[in-house]
Amino acid sequence: MTQSTSWEALAARKRAQLAASLPKEWVVPDEFLPPADQDDITGWPATSGWFTPEELRITESTASELIPLLASGELSSETVTRAFCKRAVAAQQLLNCLSETCFDRAIETAKARDEHLARTGKPLGPLHGLPVSLKDNINVKGLDSTVGFASHVGDPAADDSALVAVLEAAGAVPYVKTNVPTAMMIAETVNNVFGRTINPLHRGVTPGGSSGGESALITFGGSCLGVGSDIGGSLRIPAACTGLFTLRASGGRFPVRNCRSGMPGQEAVMSVNGPLARTLDDIEAYTRAVLNGQPWLLDSKCLPIPWRETIEIPKKLTIGVLWNDGVVRPTPPVARALKLAVARLRAAGHTLVDWDPVDQAEGTRLLARMFVADGGKTIQHQLNRTGEPLRPEMAMYGTAAELGTAEMWKLHIERTAFQGKYLDRWNAAGLDAILCPTIPFNTVKHGTFEHVGYTGVYNVLDYACMSFPTGLVVDKVIDKMDPAYEPLGAIDKKVSDGYDPETMHGLPISLQLVARRLEEEKVIGMCRSVLSALSESKTNGTNGIVHEV
Amino acid sequence: MTQSTSWEALAARKRAQLAASLPKEWVVPDEFLPPADQDDITGWPATSGWFTPEELRITESTASELIPLLASGELSSETVTRAFCKRAVAAQQLLNCLSETCFDRAIETAKARDEHLARTGKPLGPLHGLPVSLKDNINVKGLDSTVGFASHVGDPAADDSALVAVLEAAGAVPYVKTNVPTAMMIAETVNNVFGRTINPLHRGVTPGGSSGGESALITFGGSCLGVGSDIGGSLRIPAACTGLFTLRASGGRFPVRNCRSGMPGQEAVMSVNGPLARTLDDIEAYTRAVLNGQPWLLDSKCLPIPWRETIEIPKKLTIGVLWNDGVVRPTPPVARALKLAVARLRAAGHTLVDWDPVDQAEGTRLLARMFVADGGKTIQHQLNRTGEPLRPEMAMYGTAAELGTAEMWKLHIERTAFQGKYLDRWNAAGLDAILCPTIPFNTVKHGTFEHVGYTGVYNVLDYACMSFPTGLVVDKVIDKMDPAYEPLGAIDKKVSDGYDPETMHGLPISLQLVARRLEEEKVIGMCRSVLSALSESKTNGTNGIVHEV
Repeated sequence: MTQSTSWEALAARKRAQLAASLPKEWVVPDEFLPPADQDDITGWPATSGWFTPEELRITESTASELIPLLASGELSSETVTRAFCKRAVAAQQLLNCLSETCFDRAIETAKARDEHLARTGKPLGPLHGLPVSLKDNINVKGLDSTVGFASHVGDPAADDSALVAVLEAAGAVPYVKTNVPTAMMIAETVNNVFGRTINPLHRGVTPGGSSGGESALITFGGSCLGVGSDIGGSLRIPAACTGLFTLRASGGRFPVRNCRSGMPGQEAVMSVNGPLARTLDDIEAYTRAVLNGQPWLLDSKCLPIPWRETIEIPKKLTIGVLWNDGVVRPTPPVARALKLAVARLRAAGHTLVDWDPVDQAEGTRLLARMFVADGGKTIQHQLNRTGEPLRPEMAMYGTAAELGTAEMWKLHIERTAFQGKYLDRWNAAGLDAILCPTIPFNTVKHGTFEHVGYTGVYNVLDYACMSFPTGLVVDKVIDKMDPAYEPLGAIDKKVSDGYDPETMHGLPISLQLVARRLEEEKVIGMCRSVLSALSESKTNGTNGIVHEV
Repeated sequence: MTQSTSWEALAARKRAQLAASLPKEWVVPDEFLPPADQDDITGWPATSGWFTPEELRITESTASELIPLLASGELSSETVTRAFCKRAVAAQQLLNCLSETCFDRAIETAKARDEHLARTGKPLGPLHGLPVSLKDNINVKGLDSTVGFASHVGDPAADDSALVAVLEAAGAVPYVKTNVPTAMMIAETVNNVFGRTINPLHRGVTPGGSSGGESALITFGGSCLGVGSDIGGSLRIPAACTGLFTLRASGGRFPVRNCRSGMPGQEAVMSVNGPLARTLDDIEAYTRAVLNGQPWLLDSKCLPIPWRETIEIPKKLTIGVLWNDGVVRPTPPVARALKLAVARLRAAGHTLVDWDPVDQAEGTRLLARMFVADGGKTIQHQLNRTGEPLRPEMAMYGTAAELGTAEMWKLHIERTAFQGKYLDRWNAAGLDAILCPTIPFNTVKHGTFEHVGYTGVYNVLDYACMSFPTGLVVDKVIDKMDPAYEPLGAIDKKVSDGYDPETMHGLPISLQLVARRLEEEKVIGMCRSVLSALSESKTNGTNGIVHEV
């Protein structure tokens, strides 16, 4: 790639390459596709006639359902991999959720898994034969990792990333990489190379970002287990926008070596990667597999902490409830789900206390300052290489002033003081977890995402967090905006004005559960307790309508 | 403190305060002091007539010897604390090794420990009643932490540091803080406030730095267990200069919150703290006590990794030997000790392989670039507040150019790549440890320290390291410089030219043992194996004279 090649030409070439990489036999003919005005296309595969019953059975299974079948040989890895490849191609046609494919490698790997099982009688590892989709920034040998920049087109990875090595050693089968926003720094999934990714639950809304290629693909059934990344909410936001589970682990648990960062060398707040899936069991299976793969032997940034079986989850939890962050209140469905969860957790005997939002705005501001500490130079440099324009969603990277290192050190001091203050307050309250919105809404119409405050503060703190679906969905009849609603400020006004119960109707409602730094096993275990409380029917009402909390 | 107060006045005031804080009854009258021309004063306390037999018995015990006596009540904490306070005062008179004292608090704490034991029949914790000395930067409520800057005189800490809280909870008794070089960024211990700290083994040589107040105090018997810190060798260098043990743990194991940094907010290479003591058992006792005190609940930078009892030390180790770092070869005694250790480890059945110094120089350069990334502004700012001059040892902080954050991010990328490369090479060689010099010499005459390359590279890598005494001492007859020696370069020439067997005669020879990041338990265990091999008499010769390796 030379500087004389325009970004438009590079992007067009890249899109053409991606399209050409989809095998003809898996490309869905137009006549099978759903009508353009069908919002929710998640039901389409089952009724399309394009997939065989076996393909549907496989691709609608969870990872935890497939793992034992693959380990026993009841299903071959090749069969499972082919099914997911085929469905991922359909996802790409309908959702624009992929960035790269490596179907040939995947089928070769799958065959090698099957051969291994036949020869040894044993699965290769805990993810034996399971296809796993990967966010675009996770390097796979021979594939680009453009992270949405035209400048990275035609710059294939020389090696697999450490994560891919660990996943392969665990038996997994990489087969696709998924779309991201430019530099992975937008809360939707849109960039100048591949364009915009669509939410299969409603094609008019965003699947979130930056791991929105993953959330779209998994929600559509084109993957049962995918890997995204998170530096300000990039796993949790797409999970919440589509009703998936995700774990945003603290820095150092999952390997990041040889992944492409949107802002390479930025370390004041750590980018981490982690799983997205449809069940909590799948999140745990992934976490256990990767941590027991000793990633610290491959990545100097990883901590030698294997999956800790012995972490005890208190039977009765003390949970701080962050009803709102003082900047943007949750929209009616999210507020209703939070209220219901609190009621049911109380009914189950847990202790729920209010968590003062006093520190949240400061945390959000710190995050933004760390993101633009280089004055946006790193991102501008990639754009300048091809003349690619800065996307309007990223305006702050075009206007920020660069800090000198001495000022940067002062910012580190502020951030560390913030972490200390938050930890002290947490300890004083005797918390096990914080329960709060993941985002102030379910999702939003394309191009209108505002506010990553609920997630970003926990990146600054490097806490272990999950976003999980509550099992509730939006009901336009009950989830109405109070006409007398008084916004907390300008962003809250935008968010509340933008809330449209008609569009949101039927979409899943997610919440966030937060544990302290490096308490991944605990937050997974506590999420199980929360789900268990939510599924209790002690509180009356359907779809979470409670009259008293 | 106002800007109009000159640094000289502040420094003089501080020195006067320190002198005034030494209780009259503990100040050694001139007639008891050793003659000015006596180089080695470590034997003086025993023969001085100033200390009672009980005081000598206590202060010449190790921490591990005292701990059970304190726990059982055989010795009261007050008696032990008073003995160390008294000997520390003598140390200060002779070595200028203290920066702060809190004798009243110490005796009060000791009494409370004794009262606790009497009342409950149980020790408060694993360090019950044990006096522990602290490097100047470790905040103790009400005491200054000047770290050698006049600007910090009269700015007492509002609170105890997290480390002090953990140590107190374990039963320890803080009683003095110890001198450091300016900003803790010189490998000797000298600053414009307190002046220079002296080595009790030979008053003409340095006890090293930056934790040289500690190494001098402990070597003199004024402390049996002290805490220093290390960002480029500041624990290991003073340990080697005095023949003590130390553990330079990886970042995140020991708490650093509310300690004063020499370059606050600098995070590209982490400053860590750790113990200095006369035995390996003492190092282990401290490490176990602090890690089991759950420091991560107090310090957001700490990792939730308690002392790991289950780490297995391979019976037969694979050890890479870094004979020299390609920049400065070890002087004859250090080279001899390394040769002997290798021979005895081989004889004990371990596998010793040569470790190529190919990456060492790059590591050292990276460290220096990270130290001055702010163009020295942070240090200059402290000096400018009082007009204090930059010390000549720190010239690089006066000439460096500040990096912008974008350049700093690139430096992070280089450092991370270096860490990855080193780890890959380590894994490929199947190493358990690296054995190498801690410093190229035993110690040096005041003001002539050169080269922190052997230690600094492992700060860049954040590896777990120990410096340990081999049990060997310099013998001026055998440890002669080869007249035909050809230096590797300018620094090596200075070091080899400066080597003086006459001055070094009788001084202890230390080596460094290095494990991977966060392998603290393993490096302690491996050090035990190395000491065991060194004490084997299979190889002939006295004082490590071997004729064949």
